[in-house]
Amino acid sequence: MAKNKAGEQTLAFLRVPIISTWGTVVGPMEGEGPLGDYFDKILDNNLYEGDKSWEESEQKMMQHSMELALEHAGMSSKDMEFYLAGDLLNQIIVANFTARFFDVPFLGVYGACSTLVEGLALGSTLICGEYADKVGVSVSSHHDTAERQLRFPTEQGVQRPMTAQWTVTGAGSYILGSSGSGIRITHATIGKIKDLGISDTNNMGTAMAPAAFDTIKANLQDLGRKVSDYDLIITGDLGILGLSVLKELMRAEGYVTDNVSDCGVLIYRPDQDTHSGGSGCGCSGVVLSYLLKQMVERRYLRIFLIGTGALLSPISAFQGESIPGIAHGVVLEYC
Amino acid sequence: MAKNKAGEQTLAFLRVPIISTWGTVVGPMEGEGPLGDYFDKILDNNLYEGDKSWEESEQKMMQHSMELALEHAGMSSKDMEFYLAGDLLNQIIVANFTARFFDVPFLGVYGACSTLVEGLALGSTLICGEYADKVGVSVSSHHDTAERQLRFPTEQGVQRPMTAQWTVTGAGSYILGSSGSGIRITHATIGKIKDLGISDTNNMGTAMAPAAFDTIKANLQDLGRKVSDYDLIITGDLGILGLSVLKELMRAEGYVTDNVSDCGVLIYRPDQDTHSGGSGCGCSGVVLSYLLKQMVERRYLRIFLIGTGALLSPISAFQGESIPGIAHGVVLEYC
Repeated sequence: MAKNKAGEQTLAFLRVPIISTWGTVVGPMEGEGPLGDYFDKILDNNLYEGDKSWEESEQKMMQHSMELALEHAGMSSKDMEFYLAGDLLNQIIVANFTARFFDVPFLGVYGACSTLVEGLALGSTLICGEYADKVGVSVSSHHDTAERQLRFPTEQGVQRPMTAQWTVTGAGSYILGSSGSGIRITHATIGKIKDLGISDTNNMGTAMAPAAFDTIKANLQDLGRKVSDYDLIITGDLGILGLSVLKELMRAEGYVTDNVSDCGVLIYRPDQDTHSGGSGCGCSGVVLSYLLKQMVERRYLRIFLIGTGALLSPISAFQGESIPGIAHGVVLEYC
Repeated sequence: MAKNKAGEQTLAFLRVPIISTWGTVVGPMEGEGPLGDYFDKILDNNLYEGDKSWEESEQKMMQHSMELALEHAGMSSKDMEFYLAGDLLNQIIVANFTARFFDVPFLGVYGACSTLVEGLALGSTLICGEYADKVGVSVSSHHDTAERQLRFPTEQGVQRPMTAQWTVTGAGSYILGSSGSGIRITHATIGKIKDLGISDTNNMGTAMAPAAFDTIKANLQDLGRKVSDYDLIITGDLGILGLSVLKELMRAEGYVTDNVSDCGVLIYRPDQDTHSGGSGCGCSGVVLSYLLKQMVERRYLRIFLIGTGALLSPISAFQGESIPGIAHGVVLEYC
């Protein structure tokens, strides 16, 4: 087995990738949620003043979040040696258009809501493989751009079933470095596609739960760990229903689930009426910043964050295809 | 500077990633082109027998190309430690659906027609960083799925301007290994977004040529090389018009261009009436197999292959946005 691999699916980062700084921008609804105080910038409106389209505003949010991360690090964009980014829009146009402003080597990644963790994992291989000392990672989602692309235009007022998740309006950017102190990424577990035949685009949590479980099991097996070796195992984002499915799957195979949670469950209050909680690249994209702050304050010392992606497209949904799920995880440790 | 970096944009692979085997599947038109004899499988029709949609057939083509690559290597899909793939369809659904059949850790990548080279570059970092000994990379495009998504349904018979390229129906899969003999990937140069404000989706070659030139210059500067240090510098895919723009840009800055070519120019005969030549992930995706065979026969010892991506989306085009271009390159050497 290759030297820096720990088991079948897990990469071991022997040289430290440190998450040194980050920046987050969210919409008003996310700002009013329980984690509102943790985000760097809360917009008054889902549109930036003067923007003509939600797509334009989502692009600005991603850019803005990276500008905040760079500012916190005292870096200029040119100090990023590589930039990895992705989002939910067709042809990851938000990421492409954002990279236009930074003039740095850019790699586009796509894994639906697993994109953040995919970016962190690949960014870590660049740092730990000694290809770079500073790598930037950004993701975003926007309620109105995602809904009109993947489901219905929000103006249409289609009634959402209770199984539906609410796409988060948010952007998160993270800077990985080869030195310094802070939160370290020690491992990444790369997921396999799991497809249980679910084809309801309003029930993505259930479609993704088996992939999340598979990646949790792979991580525990590859590293010889138990669930309790993590202070927190957190998916992003199964939502309320998907999390309950994941916990059921885990309990059925004898795992404890006390320390298992989900970014989509944390980001909104129950009375915000999102139905099954949050989703979208931007959900784990901004909730990670909350988790990192908890780690800095030593509330958690070791977290396993699992990004979960529902790999549907409107075309595949119209053609009656099922929704394959994928989940990638990174192990975060305070050091 | 990080140890395995050679200059600002170039990764140096000191440990060998070898392209050991590959598989290609093309449509009938590509089979009739000048490189037809080099492809493993030529379909009689743009649809596999019994398929109800072009999307279904494109998925089968990608899968089929990887199955051929694995067969040539005497490997099973489970021997791939990681699988990187992408395509032109929204949410890279062809790659996601193909990965469903292989049950291996999967990473989705997107860079429009630069996706092949992005996959080869990231796959090489996994091999050379000692995260894996075998990595699979696949890309595909399909004329009819791409046209109806990005321009017009082909049944509509819209007249194509002479600047338009023809999306290749083709899929290519490559297996990178940490040992063996063959063609080695020695470097990857990761591109920056270049946007000259072109917004005509039927003139993508011109939109991408500046990005290609920028990546060529970065590679030559990072490695202290001249154009003539390569037996061939080949883009994929600027097409006929884009290649002439690239050559003009190069000549204007004093570079020779005798050994500069393009995958989109090579894949069709002029009388196949494609206008400006081929495009799509599948173009460089299958033409690379021809180039590798030329290297095995020692016609070329060192090639710089540059994947060029036009990062448009139908939404961004409708909203009047320009088309950002990107280009990533890999250096291939016979060893």
